[in-house]
Amino acid sequence: MSDQARRIKRGEVRAAARLMRDLDDRVPGAQAVLRELYAAAGRAHVVGITGPAGCGKSTLADQLLEAARKEGQKVGVVAVDPTSHISGGAVLGDRVRMQRHARDPRVFIRSLASRGSLGGLSRSVFDTVTVLDSMGKDLILVETAGVGQDGVKVAGAAHTVLVVLAPGLGDEVQAIKAGVLEIGDIYVVNKGDRSGCEPLLRSLRWALEGKPCEVVKTCARTGAGVGPLFKLIAEHRSALQAGAGWQERSRGMARAAFLERLEAGMKETLSGRLRREKSLQKLQEDLACRRTDPDTAARRALRELIKRGQR
Amino acid sequence: MSDQARRIKRGEVRAAARLMRDLDDRVPGAQAVLRELYAAAGRAHVVGITGPAGCGKSTLADQLLEAARKEGQKVGVVAVDPTSHISGGAVLGDRVRMQRHARDPRVFIRSLASRGSLGGLSRSVFDTVTVLDSMGKDLILVETAGVGQDGVKVAGAAHTVLVVLAPGLGDEVQAIKAGVLEIGDIYVVNKGDRSGCEPLLRSLRWALEGKPCEVVKTCARTGAGVGPLFKLIAEHRSALQAGAGWQERSRGMARAAFLERLEAGMKETLSGRLRREKSLQKLQEDLACRRTDPDTAARRALRELIKRGQR
Repeated sequence: MSDQARRIKRGEVRAAARLMRDLDDRVPGAQAVLRELYAAAGRAHVVGITGPAGCGKSTLADQLLEAARKEGQKVGVVAVDPTSHISGGAVLGDRVRMQRHARDPRVFIRSLASRGSLGGLSRSVFDTVTVLDSMGKDLILVETAGVGQDGVKVAGAAHTVLVVLAPGLGDEVQAIKAGVLEIGDIYVVNKGDRSGCEPLLRSLRWALEGKPCEVVKTCARTGAGVGPLFKLIAEHRSALQAGAGWQERSRGMARAAFLERLEAGMKETLSGRLRREKSLQKLQEDLACRRTDPDTAARRALRELIKRGQR
Repeated sequence: MSDQARRIKRGEVRAAARLMRDLDDRVPGAQAVLRELYAAAGRAHVVGITGPAGCGKSTLADQLLEAARKEGQKVGVVAVDPTSHISGGAVLGDRVRMQRHARDPRVFIRSLASRGSLGGLSRSVFDTVTVLDSMGKDLILVETAGVGQDGVKVAGAAHTVLVVLAPGLGDEVQAIKAGVLEIGDIYVVNKGDRSGCEPLLRSLRWALEGKPCEVVKTCARTGAGVGPLFKLIAEHRSALQAGAGWQERSRGMARAAFLERLEAGMKETLSGRLRREKSLQKLQEDLACRRTDPDTAARRALRELIKRGQR
């Protein structure tokens, strides 16, 4: 085992932070260290937190972090932010809120900026979780932007998925709920001191009837309901570990990371070869001049790129 | 040319609606008809309309449709809805609003539900645009849910891209603007009668300074500003057609449709072969038992699936 991997396994923050940076920058050798760590990981409870902008995910994550620290757990946080151009206000605010834990040596907070594209982002999330896990964290909170399928996909790669909603977000909730009703283990109606909570709770309970999930109310700002929620999360872990659930979810996470890399690898190969290979260039010229149509061109390109299957 | 293609080219609504349904259901032969139509298409002005939920995109699309009809243009609309589970209220409302045009034989409105996944959706959008185009529509409005990258991607496959924003959407605007500032030809601050419009206009003008795009204010509810916006859209078309822009955008659209199909085809091949082939099954078992890691497994699978490149 390499020296860097050994230091990360001992929980050394600087070694871990450096590897995360190297992975982001695709420094040669970084993936090899990650592979060493992967064998040592698989113990942490990974909790995904997703939901629309403005529902209070960060404040809730901060409260859960606090609750876990009070129980002596070592905690990692992966926070996925949409990059802010005009003003970074809200986003910075979230991070600052969590910074009260930043000097705690048993807490590691990693922010990942989404930069308008999610291709490499879910990969970074998987990698960061592996590093935190191998450091010996007990609990890893993965907080995602949660708008649309991207958030759903990332948050879905967890042992326990929290879906956070809040009253008054209206259209936004409409827009994501199609995917969101399928993925949650615990549904949290946050901002529980606001009007509109009860109708939202009722709608959720109705929509989720018969599904194996919990629906709870919190107010992350005041901390109300966070204790019971934290208990539910721990109970979900215990229930998973009592049966085959823990193994299944862990396998699902490994599979999600594998598929993400495989698809990214295919796309990379694809775009490189579309640029370089003569027969594929010809195809693209034909397409540009309308000598062929997108469907025909795509089927031809597939034949040039993909090996024939074998049993 | 097939009878169905001929009828669609004559503008027959029933033949077009049937082909769209057949394409969605992947009825054999439907793609062949689409290929025939593709050669006849390429004349319509495709206008993408994107923006966060609640910004009034549908109302604006309806007003633009009205303006185009007053000028005698034949218009097609492709509206992408997030599927609604708890209550379809807002979404239905939008459609109902546009229904005043539904009996106009020179207007064709097609709603596509996003069903929580966008894989097949952008494909449906491309196909629908081709059908409407070959029917002889002058203007095709493509209105997308616009949250996150998915909306950006679909709306980006247009000659003219409208990005609609509104004051008071806050976090939501933050969340999408990273991608959104790159794609618009015309930025529309809608709900112009609300307070907060002027600061939003100023921020946008500041953020977009030096970029070749317009920033305008509308109030789609009352119709204020829609006339000037409609004029800007027509001017953008003329400017594209005066130079190489129209060709470039049309090629970009064909290329986007091609890449979408190619990636979908690769994913389909991938998931089929991961299920069926012995060597790939073995790889996945190793992964599940942590005998290998996601990165190594993905690289091995790529080697089994992708042909070696040739110059």
